[in-house]
Amino acid sequence: MNQKIFDNNWLIESGNEKDVVLISRIRLARNLKEFNFPNKATLSEKEKIIDELQNNLNFLKDKNFHLFKMEEFSSLERDVLHEKNLISKCHSENIEGTALILNNKLHLSTMVNEEDHLRIQVFGSGLDFTTIWQIADQFDDQIESEVEYAFSNKWGYLTSCPTNVGTALRASVMCHLPALVLSDRINEVLGAVGKFGLTVRGVFGEGSGSAGELFQISNQVTLGYSEKEIIDNLKSIILQIIREERRTRLYLVNKNYDKLKDNVLRSLGILKYAHSLKENEALNFLSKVKFGLDSGLIEEEINKNAFSELIFKIRTAHLQLNNYNNKEQLNIKRAELIRNSL
Amino acid sequence: MNQKIFDNNWLIESGNEKDVVLISRIRLARNLKEFNFPNKATLSEKEKIIDELQNNLNFLKDKNFHLFKMEEFSSLERDVLHEKNLISKCHSENIEGTALILNNKLHLSTMVNEEDHLRIQVFGSGLDFTTIWQIADQFDDQIESEVEYAFSNKWGYLTSCPTNVGTALRASVMCHLPALVLSDRINEVLGAVGKFGLTVRGVFGEGSGSAGELFQISNQVTLGYSEKEIIDNLKSIILQIIREERRTRLYLVNKNYDKLKDNVLRSLGILKYAHSLKENEALNFLSKVKFGLDSGLIEEEINKNAFSELIFKIRTAHLQLNNYNNKEQLNIKRAELIRNSL
Repeated sequence: MNQKIFDNNWLIESGNEKDVVLISRIRLARNLKEFNFPNKATLSEKEKIIDELQNNLNFLKDKNFHLFKMEEFSSLERDVLHEKNLISKCHSENIEGTALILNNKLHLSTMVNEEDHLRIQVFGSGLDFTTIWQIADQFDDQIESEVEYAFSNKWGYLTSCPTNVGTALRASVMCHLPALVLSDRINEVLGAVGKFGLTVRGVFGEGSGSAGELFQISNQVTLGYSEKEIIDNLKSIILQIIREERRTRLYLVNKNYDKLKDNVLRSLGILKYAHSLKENEALNFLSKVKFGLDSGLIEEEINKNAFSELIFKIRTAHLQLNNYNNKEQLNIKRAELIRNSL
Repeated sequence: MNQKIFDNNWLIESGNEKDVVLISRIRLARNLKEFNFPNKATLSEKEKIIDELQNNLNFLKDKNFHLFKMEEFSSLERDVLHEKNLISKCHSENIEGTALILNNKLHLSTMVNEEDHLRIQVFGSGLDFTTIWQIADQFDDQIESEVEYAFSNKWGYLTSCPTNVGTALRASVMCHLPALVLSDRINEVLGAVGKFGLTVRGVFGEGSGSAGELFQISNQVTLGYSEKEIIDNLKSIILQIIREERRTRLYLVNKNYDKLKDNVLRSLGILKYAHSLKENEALNFLSKVKFGLDSGLIEEEINKNAFSELIFKIRTAHLQLNNYNNKEQLNIKRAELIRNSL
């Protein structure tokens, strides 16, 4: 696979509230009526599904779309796709009878034969479900016009796992919540989120101690609500979290102006000068710098979008694509990439 | 006293080996024959001594020299003079019947009625006893031509404390020894120094844990050797320490290139960006940056002399001269001064 594709911007640059929301994502699970679900399907059945898609989906003849069999990718390329969230860990490991449909810009991806026959995903920057839902919905209709989905009038879209049945829609946002973490209010606020049918996890690493103070919040319930209701519910909770994070930032900045200013500026100084940076360490300094920029503590002109790009580009597999394999070399390359980006 | 005087460069800029030796100093203790030593003298006797000097020393009529009574200085100004090493702690505190003779450039100072009637000091940057000894010797001769010293053919120059008798000469250097500290060899090397009649102390704080990895090394013995022998002995030991420090730097840089480069560059990044810096913390980062510059780990163009200026300018009394009295304000002002200097 051409390495250039990995440099593409895989986020639609249209969203808002970018001081708190980095990425919005919509995922739809779909299955083809005539085939067993992937967990029951044999390898030859899975290959037949891929052929079926290849033959029937007209948009694959379009230059903007590609269907790749997973075995076409090197192990490193699969890791990069996983780091970009374009595929799941599981999909990066199971390469027999699996495939990936990507558009050129990478913001629209579809895993083939992961847990379901099709897992359609759309990614946008900032809070932006209007745009990405429109893209996902349109893409879904396009596929449905060419293949027959497993659908029940009672249950909606049928899926391998019953928790996805119904709309089979999962909407999620990646949020940057440094003030809630710093003020030790993160567990309280994120705990409350569960009561509204949402789930939270750290983006890098497990639990609330997420590196970079990044959290992914998504809906848990897919059945009994329309797509619009699910998205609107998520959006309204996210807006409350945004308000809470912003209020806490103001409070902290007022209370500890000099200390926080010092902390974020030192982080910037280290990112601008370090010779070597480990992944988690880099994420944490980037998080501090983004907080400093968004809260006005850092006045220097720095491209704010650098942050959402860097949190992916500095990850190990992304760096390894450039042939830096020794661990210390990776840390050095990571520091260089950050210095050049800021 | 005009604040401008404190901004003067009090080091003669002529020495060598500046990667290791920051400052050379020579101190001569002298007493006037006709008066009790200061520890026995009454206040009126001390005042008489000051008058005697004021009347007899012709060079004091010269614009380049000033005799200040210590009580003319504010407490803060005395702290600044002490931070510059121009006066002792004791001299900054006892302001009755004491005085200070300074030349305009501040590299030549004489405490009057400290432990001895006269304590002449000359300061130069780098290793440079030739120049500063010449200045001290000439200045001493000039005074001796106008007042009569307490001198014994058997003991040499007589002093309040018997350990100074003889030449009454103390020569010292302030050395930057980061590699010997980092490699845990500092105590071994400095311990050996004692066997050659020298003593060592941390410049800031006590013991070998000196902030900024700065050490002052001076002769202990003043009797039984000529001035030239004392200086030559000190110089030959210092040259060995310089060699040892340089060898250790090379060794460490070869062994831990990336780790050290990262460490010194992060220190530079913090100094260039921090909003607030405590005194010891600033000294330690400055020490790392100087080490980085001297060992080639930092390639950026930075004024190397900034280091020997900054280690004094960032000290508390120096900063307070500019009316920053609140402790946090001082730290912020310190960080600003360093950012602007680098």
